[in-house]
Formats: sequence, C-alpha cells, structure tokens
Amino acid sequence: MQLWLCCALLVFVAGGCLAQKPRPCRSPPLLEGSLTVTAQNGGYSAYGKYAYDAILQRVRFGEFVHHDNKTLIRDVLLLYREHVMYLINPKNKTCQKRKLTSQFHPMKIPCNSTLLGQVVLGSLSAPGEGLLVNSWTGEASEDQGRYILTFTEFGCLPVSVLFNRPKTGWIVMSFFNNIRGIKEPSVFFPPPICKNATLDTEEEGDFFSAFF
Amino acid sequence: MQLWLCCALLVFVAGGCLAQKPRPCRSPPLLEGSLTVTAQNGGYSAYGKYAYDAILQRVRFGEFVHHDNKTLIRDVLLLYREHVMYLINPKNKTCQKRKLTSQFHPMKIPCNSTLLGQVVLGSLSAPGEGLLVNSWTGEASEDQGRYILTFTEFGCLPVSVLFNRPKTGWIVMSFFNNIRGIKEPSVFFPPPICKNATLDTEEEGDFFSAFF
Repeated sequence: MQLWLCCALLVFVAGGCLAQKPRPCRSPPLLEGSLTVTAQNGGYSAYGKYAYDAILQRVRFGEFVHHDNKTLIRDVLLLYREHVMYLINPKNKTCQKRKLTSQFHPMKIPCNSTLLGQVVLGSLSAPGEGLLVNSWTGEASEDQGRYILTFTEFGCLPVSVLFNRPKTGWIVMSFFNNIRGIKEPSVFFPPPICKNATLDTEEEGDFFSAFF
Repeated sequence: MQLWLCCALLVFVAGGCLAQKPRPCRSPPLLEGSLTVTAQNGGYSAYGKYAYDAILQRVRFGEFVHHDNKTLIRDVLLLYREHVMYLINPKNKTCQKRKLTSQFHPMKIPCNSTLLGQVVLGSLSAPGEGLLVNSWTGEASEDQGRYILTFTEFGCLPVSVLFNRPKTGWIVMSFFNNIRGIKEPSVFFPPPICKNATLDTEEEGDFFSAFF
C-alpha cells in the first residue's frame, strides 16, 4: 500500500514539474564560451570568447571585431568590484585602464520579464536532436532599451540576447560552446602589459565599451 | 580474448565516428514545425507553421505576416509535382491558383557547401542542456544569392536558414518545434474553397511568393 502511495506521489510530483510554466532563472556563476555580436544595420560584427565569474563579478572578452570595413582584435577585462576595465591591445602591446561606470549584471532573466514562449530548437522526436529554450522580453531599467532573451530551459544557459538601444539599434548576441566552470582562473588577472597602466582620467567605460 | 578484441574494435569505431568531420546531410522526408521569417531591414516579419513532404514534393505554410505596418494571414500550398500553388485567404474565403515556376528544393545541405563550423547551442556540460549544430555556407545556383544554413548534427533538422537575395537583402528563417512525420496528411489537399479555382494566367509563383 505504501509503495502504491509513493508511486502515485511520484507521478503527481513529476506531472506537476512538467506542467510548470517556465520561470525566470539565473545562469551558473562560472561560465566560459564563445559569442558572436551583430548589429542590425550590418556595419558591426564580432566573434570571440568570453569568461564569466558572477561570484567575484569579473568578465573577460577576447574578440575579432569587424567594424566599418576594418578588422581589429579586442581584449577586454572588466573588474566590477574594483570599478575598473582594461582595454588590452595584444597587437600593439598596449593597455588602457578606465573607470568602469556600469553595475555588474549577472546573466539571468530579470524577474519582471514577460515570457514570449517556450520552443524546441531541432526536435524532441529523437534523443540529442533538440534543445528546449525559453524566450523572454522586457525593458532594461538603465537605458530603457527593449530586450529579448533566449535561455535554455535546463541549465539556464544563454542562447541569444537581443537588445535595442537608441544609439545602436538592434544588437544580436549569440552564445555557443558554453561550459560550466573556468578552465584557467588567471584569465581574470590583468596581463603583465597592464602592470604600469594608470587610470585614464579622461575616458570612462561600461559593458558596451567592450564591443563598440 | 575475443571479448577484448570486440571492446577494442568498439572503441576504435566509436572514436572514428566522433572524429569524423560533419558531412552535408538531408533532412527527414516528412516534417512539421514552426518558423519565423525576418528581413534584415526590419520591414518584414512572419510567424507560422509548415508541413513538408519531400516524397510527394508538397509544402504547406500558414503564417501571420507583418509587412509595412500591416498584418495579414497567409495560407499557401505548394504542389511541385503538379506545378501549381494555391494562395488561400481564410479571412476573405478566396483561393488563387497559380503556376509554380520553381523546382522543389529538398531541405538539405547542398554537397558543394563549405563548412563554417560545428558549435554547441547551450552546453554539453550536462544532459539536455545542449544541441550540436553545423553551419554551412555557399552560393545558390538559381539566383546567385549567398546562404548560411545551420542544421542539427543529429537528425539533420533545420535550425536557421539565412539567404541574401538582390531583391530582399538578408532574410533569416528560424525553425523550431519540428517533429518527424505529418500529423494530418490532408494538409496537402487543396481546401474546399479552392475546388473551383482556375489557373491564373497572368501571375506565376515560386517558393518566395509564399512569403513576399
């Protein structure tokens, strides 16, 4: 009798889980992966790698940027707790240290976002052929830009981030090859060429300075 | 000894499979799913469902189209073997029958495509969190437009199709909620309102007439 009760409870709980609507979620605190960034007008595109540490609020980007028919390499380290960012030029071996004006935004779906829908990329007709993702939309509080976020249902990993800012129009960031954890923790240390960099008093930076 | 040999062979074969570079593939012959279509200039977007039969060369689209600040419903049946297409207007209950001028293109990666890369959407760090996809590029033979195709590694299912035609610029088609098979085979029959439709002698149609 007890076994039947357990089974019935298990089915009830499992049914409840499956029936649940997606809820805003937060990505794992340590992530690495690749990303592309594309502007709607086609004048800007970037391909690169990122490392993300939400515990100590640190982000590193290394990218190839294609902007106005020029290609350049960008290497950016954002240390939010210290309120500084390093713009590293590996080609010229120069390093610029700027005050970081923006707050750290963890990778997550904001609680006041509206669910656009849950879809399967590929198919669930056979194992390994599909990925369940949720798309959310809302208005960013800081610059009043609209965003559309697509994250995986399982793991809360970013798939695409679209945002519309007055300055830039629609920007599409696509994430892939994500792994949980950080392979090389020293990726968040300023490189040796930044050792003697002094804080630039004329220019400040924010998250978007890493791209534009 | 025989067991060891079997194990060694199994590891060798499995290793060989994993080491293989992706190869152009063909989607399952019967598919249903949803899609969105977006133009780069932002003036056109569509959301709808599709049914695809590569055996009898039939395709059906039902879409909400948003074009030049107008929203309309489109229902299109393409019968390639009969060289006809039906443009059905479910609101006005009218049906237009046109000559279909284009050839049937099965959903596949053309053999002369170039592999851009293989990536994981989401992550392979845990089960159910990632999807392995391949991206391919090439030139379409008919209208010399460039394409970028992203299909799943397992199952060869479409994820996104980008093409650049002189008339339209870049068009992005995103596929999701795909299932193998056709739920309702009569979806490929012309609906009753098309029974008395006569072939339009003034206008012809092709695949793109279903969208633009």
